[in-house]
Amino acid sequence: MRNTLGSNVTITLFGESHGAAIGCVIDGLTPGLEVDDGKIQKLLSRRRPASLIDTPRREPDNYRILSGVFNGKTTGTPLCIMIPNEQTRSGDYLFGPARPSHADYAAHVKYNGFEDYRGGGHFSGRITASIVAAGGIVMPALNNIGIFIGTHIAECAGTKDGDFSSDEAELADEIKSLNDKNFPVLCNETGERMIAAIEAAAKESDSVGGVVRTAITGLPAGVGEPWFDSLESLLSHALFSIGAVKGIEFGKGFEAANARGSEFNDPFELKKGKVVTGTNNNGGINGGISNGMPVTFGVAVKPTPSIARPQKTVNFLTGKEEELVIHGRHDPAIVRRICPVIDSITALVIADALVTAYGPQVLLKGKDIWNSDL
Amino acid sequence: MRNTLGSNVTITLFGESHGAAIGCVIDGLTPGLEVDDGKIQKLLSRRRPASLIDTPRREPDNYRILSGVFNGKTTGTPLCIMIPNEQTRSGDYLFGPARPSHADYAAHVKYNGFEDYRGGGHFSGRITASIVAAGGIVMPALNNIGIFIGTHIAECAGTKDGDFSSDEAELADEIKSLNDKNFPVLCNETGERMIAAIEAAAKESDSVGGVVRTAITGLPAGVGEPWFDSLESLLSHALFSIGAVKGIEFGKGFEAANARGSEFNDPFELKKGKVVTGTNNNGGINGGISNGMPVTFGVAVKPTPSIARPQKTVNFLTGKEEELVIHGRHDPAIVRRICPVIDSITALVIADALVTAYGPQVLLKGKDIWNSDL
Amino acid sequence: MRNTLGSNVTITLFGESHGAAIGCVIDGLTPGLEVDDGKIQKLLSRRRPASLIDTPRREPDNYRILSGVFNGKTTGTPLCIMIPNEQTRSGDYLFGPARPSHADYAAHVKYNGFEDYRGGGHFSGRITASIVAAGGIVMPALNNIGIFIGTHIAECAGTKDGDFSSDEAELADEIKSLNDKNFPVLCNETGERMIAAIEAAAKESDSVGGVVRTAITGLPAGVGEPWFDSLESLLSHALFSIGAVKGIEFGKGFEAANARGSEFNDPFELKKGKVVTGTNNNGGINGGISNGMPVTFGVAVKPTPSIARPQKTVNFLTGKEEELVIHGRHDPAIVRRICPVIDSITALVIADALVTAYGPQVLLKGKDIWNSDL
Amino acid sequence: MRNTLGSNVTITLFGESHGAAIGCVIDGLTPGLEVDDGKIQKLLSRRRPASLIDTPRREPDNYRILSGVFNGKTTGTPLCIMIPNEQTRSGDYLFGPARPSHADYAAHVKYNGFEDYRGGGHFSGRITASIVAAGGIVMPALNNIGIFIGTHIAECAGTKDGDFSSDEAELADEIKSLNDKNFPVLCNETGERMIAAIEAAAKESDSVGGVVRTAITGLPAGVGEPWFDSLESLLSHALFSIGAVKGIEFGKGFEAANARGSEFNDPFELKKGKVVTGTNNNGGINGGISNGMPVTFGVAVKPTPSIARPQKTVNFLTGKEEELVIHGRHDPAIVRRICPVIDSITALVIADALVTAYGPQVLLKGKDIWNSDL
Repeated sequence: MRNTLGSNVTITLFGESHGAAIGCVIDGLTPGLEVDDGKIQKLLSRRRPASLIDTPRREPDNYRILSGVFNGKTTGTPLCIMIPNEQTRSGDYLFGPARPSHADYAAHVKYNGFEDYRGGGHFSGRITASIVAAGGIVMPALNNIGIFIGTHIAECAGTKDGDFSSDEAELADEIKSLNDKNFPVLCNETGERMIAAIEAAAKESDSVGGVVRTAITGLPAGVGEPWFDSLESLLSHALFSIGAVKGIEFGKGFEAANARGSEFNDPFELKKGKVVTGTNNNGGINGGISNGMPVTFGVAVKPTPSIARPQKTVNFLTGKEEELVIHGRHDPAIVRRICPVIDSITALVIADALVTAYGPQVLLKGKDIWNSDL
Repeated sequence: MRNTLGSNVTITLFGESHGAAIGCVIDGLTPGLEVDDGKIQKLLSRRRPASLIDTPRREPDNYRILSGVFNGKTTGTPLCIMIPNEQTRSGDYLFGPARPSHADYAAHVKYNGFEDYRGGGHFSGRITASIVAAGGIVMPALNNIGIFIGTHIAECAGTKDGDFSSDEAELADEIKSLNDKNFPVLCNETGERMIAAIEAAAKESDSVGGVVRTAITGLPAGVGEPWFDSLESLLSHALFSIGAVKGIEFGKGFEAANARGSEFNDPFELKKGKVVTGTNNNGGINGGISNGMPVTFGVAVKPTPSIARPQKTVNFLTGKEEELVIHGRHDPAIVRRICPVIDSITALVIADALVTAYGPQVLLKGKDIWNSDL
Repeated sequence: MRNTLGSNVTITLFGESHGAAIGCVIDGLTPGLEVDDGKIQKLLSRRRPASLIDTPRREPDNYRILSGVFNGKTTGTPLCIMIPNEQTRSGDYLFGPARPSHADYAAHVKYNGFEDYRGGGHFSGRITASIVAAGGIVMPALNNIGIFIGTHIAECAGTKDGDFSSDEAELADEIKSLNDKNFPVLCNETGERMIAAIEAAAKESDSVGGVVRTAITGLPAGVGEPWFDSLESLLSHALFSIGAVKGIEFGKGFEAANARGSEFNDPFELKKGKVVTGTNNNGGINGGISNGMPVTFGVAVKPTPSIARPQKTVNFLTGKEEELVIHGRHDPAIVRRICPVIDSITALVIADALVTAYGPQVLLKGKDIWNSDL
Repeated sequence: MRNTLGSNVTITLFGESHGAAIGCVIDGLTPGLEVDDGKIQKLLSRRRPASLIDTPRREPDNYRILSGVFNGKTTGTPLCIMIPNEQTRSGDYLFGPARPSHADYAAHVKYNGFEDYRGGGHFSGRITASIVAAGGIVMPALNNIGIFIGTHIAECAGTKDGDFSSDEAELADEIKSLNDKNFPVLCNETGERMIAAIEAAAKESDSVGGVVRTAITGLPAGVGEPWFDSLESLLSHALFSIGAVKGIEFGKGFEAANARGSEFNDPFELKKGKVVTGTNNNGGINGGISNGMPVTFGVAVKPTPSIARPQKTVNFLTGKEEELVIHGRHDPAIVRRICPVIDSITALVIADALVTAYGPQVLLKGKDIWNSDL
């Protein structure tokens, strides 16, 4: 379905980096969810470029909700968010030389030359602002039913952050704290070292990548579907739609490769009458279904492809090799700005999976439904 | 869509480990594709347990094609493959104690206790035989149009295999060779060390995980859709449906985290008049769309959860903790048997993406269509 | 999605008239629904040819449930029903001359000559046996939550049956009675006249069409989605998949064309505290959503295309016009046999719409959920 | 999928009658289709209220294309059309008394009272302006590949128009002529009688319904899918999403009920080397697949529910019966304005079915592809 994600709660994206506007349509939302401008703005502000380590393009993200909200609450009919593009400088972009590691060439072949190439067009990271705005609507609803999502920069430019706590209450606090930070790391000092490294790369006209890690708390056991709608399938499908993402692992992920079953298996145990697992190497998912433990995953983020250094490329208009120097405004690292995007898209996937499992009222009633004997 | 995968070429799975039969329905196949029993059997035999390092359950996989094939060719209408379960020994399974790292507990919550728990039921790896049978139909069609898919065990029990060749012709040869091997590694000696390590773990009533790596050659540039149907989204969605998979990375994947843009970007260049990239760190995909280079990805496979050692768990019938000793027949490692499953599901995803991009005739005509000026 | 219908409760069809077997996969069923062989057999027997007015091909419909049922109840995982074809006589069918009003020619073009042409192949009415078997599983679940579906032959060969009662309790009795009749009409005497007319047509080597009318009682208000998943859209989508159906109308349908708003509008009123409408010209649906009144629709059934008279046609192998005499075994009218097919496919659509509106547990708990303040 | 229609070419609707804007997102369009403002405006103007027989609400339909068009052509990425609501007078609308035959009550139950009730909200006919704008993009593309769609008012207020010509060339002329008419009838004199009847009803504070009939020429044989994506299923699904539609019939439709097979079957014959049928009682579709003849269908349109006469109803806020007098601005008949809506939604369905059958380039290349030996 190309630009539409989800089964029961769906999001459809539209827009290009330098067109009139970007936006999205969210369908299938439970009627009666509160829509709070402050919460949408806060999430958008976390994605917005803000400092030396971000692109100088400063879009105000003056979004407008065109439909689906009435008297401050969702109606249940499609909610369209439109965000005008205001700070476009299309002159920066050339048609012909394919920027390495960008979609330019692949898109040129796919769309037979009819693509809007300016600023990456429909493939621009700019489009993720719509995802975040949508997250600003869905995330508070999840929070209201006790589900919290947070992401930290676990690794960037050779520096590693600490790990999420294995204690669920502490983890919830960490998530809360991350969602209030401009540069979301568990250890602030580490963050400063990361920022310094990013600035160093920027000075060398270069960029850096990283790994970000996400945790979801409060998700009940039993969510996700067998096989093709496993929770891992749904989440990875959504996350890999973000251009910079090159890897995803759940729980211990690639570390599992070197583990033995006796180490990796998460034994079940009882804790205050609740079934939990002693370890959480599986990242809260067994056989594609949530098991009631925090869902955790890591995402590999590649270095921003746009760098100011001269690069070798092919010009698909002339059909010749040439040297390319990218002008325009770019981020030397997107690990910071990708965090609210990941949080938001995760929120959309979780909302959809919950509604599939329990029906639309679950987004309002939460555990009253999933614990129900109904 | 739960047990259905794909947009234009779809597969729907059914069956439980100890039920009457497992199987699948493939819809949207181009009419006129040859269906060759020998090729289906060969692929199935690669997945079938065969030696000490595999489960002693030996299913003959006597599949029957119930529909969709006429005079040895696909008709274009739904093709149903049924594989009877013949070697079931349900007495080995208990209802109550949740096997750690298995779907038992999550499924029990999800299905309110109505699940067929015998041998993992619908969550059993047994179900993948249907995926492989489907691969046996789709893979030869891709081969006929010049697309080849192969997977090797890159890492297992601490031993690493070599890397795929960066030369496309050599890579094609490697793929061919892998598809003929019982234990698919690039370096046979490495393979022997892996087998020894697996056997050692088995003797200790333990299991091991690994990493397998896949390459696709011959895929034209321009395949995949923006955002939610990116090639990475489609592939990861399919691959994460396999229970043992805990991580996926494209190209350099998690290594990207520590790279700089100037190292990671793949410069475009001309080679015999064709646009190629000098390196392939992006794994043949830019912005979610194939760029004409080999598509490469790695998959983290967790250690088989079923081990013969006593494990701590909770019995969800009694609601009490207990010690569990798993009987039954199990694989100490599934890295070998997962390779044809990954090849097959990859073939299904690629066939679907091609039909979406070029229409159904592409599976018969290949480059006559994708190079066409039509 | 070609051969798959539904969003949350789905059915995927497979099979050809003269292949090994036909069948279907039902996914998304609530776990815990009772599966009663007697009820499946009863519904199948209503579709089965039984007398002079039906085809002499007598398939025993020895269906097998291959998956998705455990201890007599649905597991919630895909339920595959397979029905072997036992009474095939493929020699009756020729490849080349397109039978008028059949899919032969259209399918030949669509499938480039690779279609299984025997007995209409995948386009055969035989395939509807799978739909009815699926109905035999879903219908009892709907009945358990107070929803009843029945169809009568309203018009056949110039003879008209009476109308459904406008009193809901009486209507429920009529539905019950129809579901026990071999020739489902409200007025038995009318039925005898219809049978005589069908036999008369058969003697003249001809066939007849008709109109059948369906009523659904017990469906709560609020089911169906706006615009593209209106209840009318969902039902008509499903019903028009049956080859013989050429028209569908809800409520007064085409009569509305000549009515004025003041006559046609259904005024709301209170009846024992419940909101009802004084008339039901809209057939229980307003704006695509159920309004709590019985849902009613009529279906136009064309005369069976296979007739024994010589017909003019084109032979697509020779490319020449020729005269065709159809041998084989055919129904002079399918108005009788189509009723359980319509009931079954309607049950599948309603089950899906309910699960979309209220979540999967609704098929077990019915009004406990839709009346809930949860 | 609620507000999204289609498999490969999709449209997603959003908006409410009295919200900020309505609009749609069209995805999957072939890159390179011309987007001609004049053609969009012309189609929109045919839907726009224009005379005494239409509502006095006069929206200028100042649509904006926000994305998906570059240099006057489609890019292949999502095309968002936004149409601001400018002439809203929400004061006309009350919350509580359910307007008979409107979605008010059903929507109130479905959305638990959170619906935007003003002017019917998301259920308003106003939403169809987006469908028509989308039609203004897709229809010219179909015309360029030789496919034409036209609709006439076949019956209104007791007056019948003539029938479409059975000669395909004449039919093409009729379609062309209908698309230029303000009141689309084949016989202008008949049209005047219809207008007089509509005006008469309006004077009596009443409304009238009608039947409109549509023809599609130039569609090749072989389009549509078996069973659940039959061409009839796809078209009826789309058409029944329009609130006023209560019946659909293909070809002779309900007349088939009284015909015999010997009369109704359409014999195949050769005409200038092409396979055609002597009659077209099946409306160009056999077994759900186009047979190369014009596709024809009729649509029953109910009388506009909003009438100025006092009506009995229930107020769902007070829970009491009351008398309702509807103020606001309404159409005494929508048979005129529904024609371009039906043409547009038909164009979307046909474009989608063509792309499914032949791949995306078919919308640019037409018969070069469907006649191709590729």
